[in-house]
Amino acid sequence: MGSSARHSRLTARPRRPRGLRTRRSILDRAVALASLEGLESLTIGRLASALHMSKSGLFAHFGSKEELQCAVVEAAKDIFVRQVMLPAAGLKGLRRLRSLCENWFRYTELQAFPGGCFFSAASLEYDDRPGKVRDRILELMQHWLLDLEETVREAQAKGEVGREVAPGQVAFEIHALAMGANWRSRLFRDSAAYSSARRAIRMRINQIAQSGRKDK
Amino acid sequence: MGSSARHSRLTARPRRPRGLRTRRSILDRAVALASLEGLESLTIGRLASALHMSKSGLFAHFGSKEELQCAVVEAAKDIFVRQVMLPAAGLKGLRRLRSLCENWFRYTELQAFPGGCFFSAASLEYDDRPGKVRDRILELMQHWLLDLEETVREAQAKGEVGREVAPGQVAFEIHALAMGANWRSRLFRDSAAYSSARRAIRMRINQIAQSGRKDK
Repeated sequence: MGSSARHSRLTARPRRPRGLRTRRSILDRAVALASLEGLESLTIGRLASALHMSKSGLFAHFGSKEELQCAVVEAAKDIFVRQVMLPAAGLKGLRRLRSLCENWFRYTELQAFPGGCFFSAASLEYDDRPGKVRDRILELMQHWLLDLEETVREAQAKGEVGREVAPGQVAFEIHALAMGANWRSRLFRDSAAYSSARRAIRMRINQIAQSGRKDK
Repeated sequence: MGSSARHSRLTARPRRPRGLRTRRSILDRAVALASLEGLESLTIGRLASALHMSKSGLFAHFGSKEELQCAVVEAAKDIFVRQVMLPAAGLKGLRRLRSLCENWFRYTELQAFPGGCFFSAASLEYDDRPGKVRDRILELMQHWLLDLEETVREAQAKGEVGREVAPGQVAFEIHALAMGANWRSRLFRDSAAYSSARRAIRMRINQIAQSGRKDK
């Protein structure tokens, strides 16, 4: 799949309803709150008290806790797309792979979410909670992993990466190293973990680039 | 620090009180339950209902929820020590490093805990919950990471690994890859993630072993 299909898959969304600005500003706060306290703790009541709004006012925007949580997941996805995916749009192969990884680190360092990467936390919180929220998080995480994998495959097609490299394996490793950095920085309050992950990921990408040069 | 100090650091425990067998069998069930439902959900009431015991009977063993949770952490540590650390006792350097990693995978595959690696889950659950339970989990995770790091350093001292390798970086990567496998297997119900992590870790250890040969 090419970059445009990949892009539309992540950015496609329904036409925006009225009252967008209010809804958007509510969701910005809701995403921040969910990243700090967990998505499952984000109820209409909790959000109303954090925003000094009435519960009925929030119910007008989001009919239920689940609808609110799903809207928060979409808002977090928009942030991810804007900060990680869009700056890599138009790039291909190894350049795209390096860009996606560097953008991910910048987005984490800039603390797009005050409580660390929203998707790393939410995916762990929901691994055992079946339902719409889990299904959507799972789908988005799968898109991200597949995008990394397809980008490695694209690099192979361009002759930048050797044929013996397994794209799914590389995607797994990049993602695992990033998750490990999140974990370590959260548990030990140790932001150096991101430098370790970045070093490891750059080294791994350099290795697969090396394999491409050997093939020639 | 040598292997014996490492060993005693993880295995030292207070003298066992009477009623050990009952306490032990209660804890076995409690660890399994906590690995499935989360350590924070493990209350005296929840455990009493799972074991068909009276709450007062459990209070006699564990005075409070926090005491119960701390006891569960120690019981989980005992399982980890028995399955991961002890089979590597007496080994040094690269052999010890390979053994620790292979034992970790075997312990995960044998499902020592029905809900996946207890410590991966608990450390994420407690990263934002200050208290005794978090402190102990953090301490145990730090021991494990330091042990991996010291083992790489030991391998350097034996000339098995090149001087340019950063032991902390290797420990970070091994641990991150294992965490990533846990995450993926839990979220996608995809046990192939462990094979990916094992492949990546073996490759990384082979690389650092290679660096040792180049030094000679």
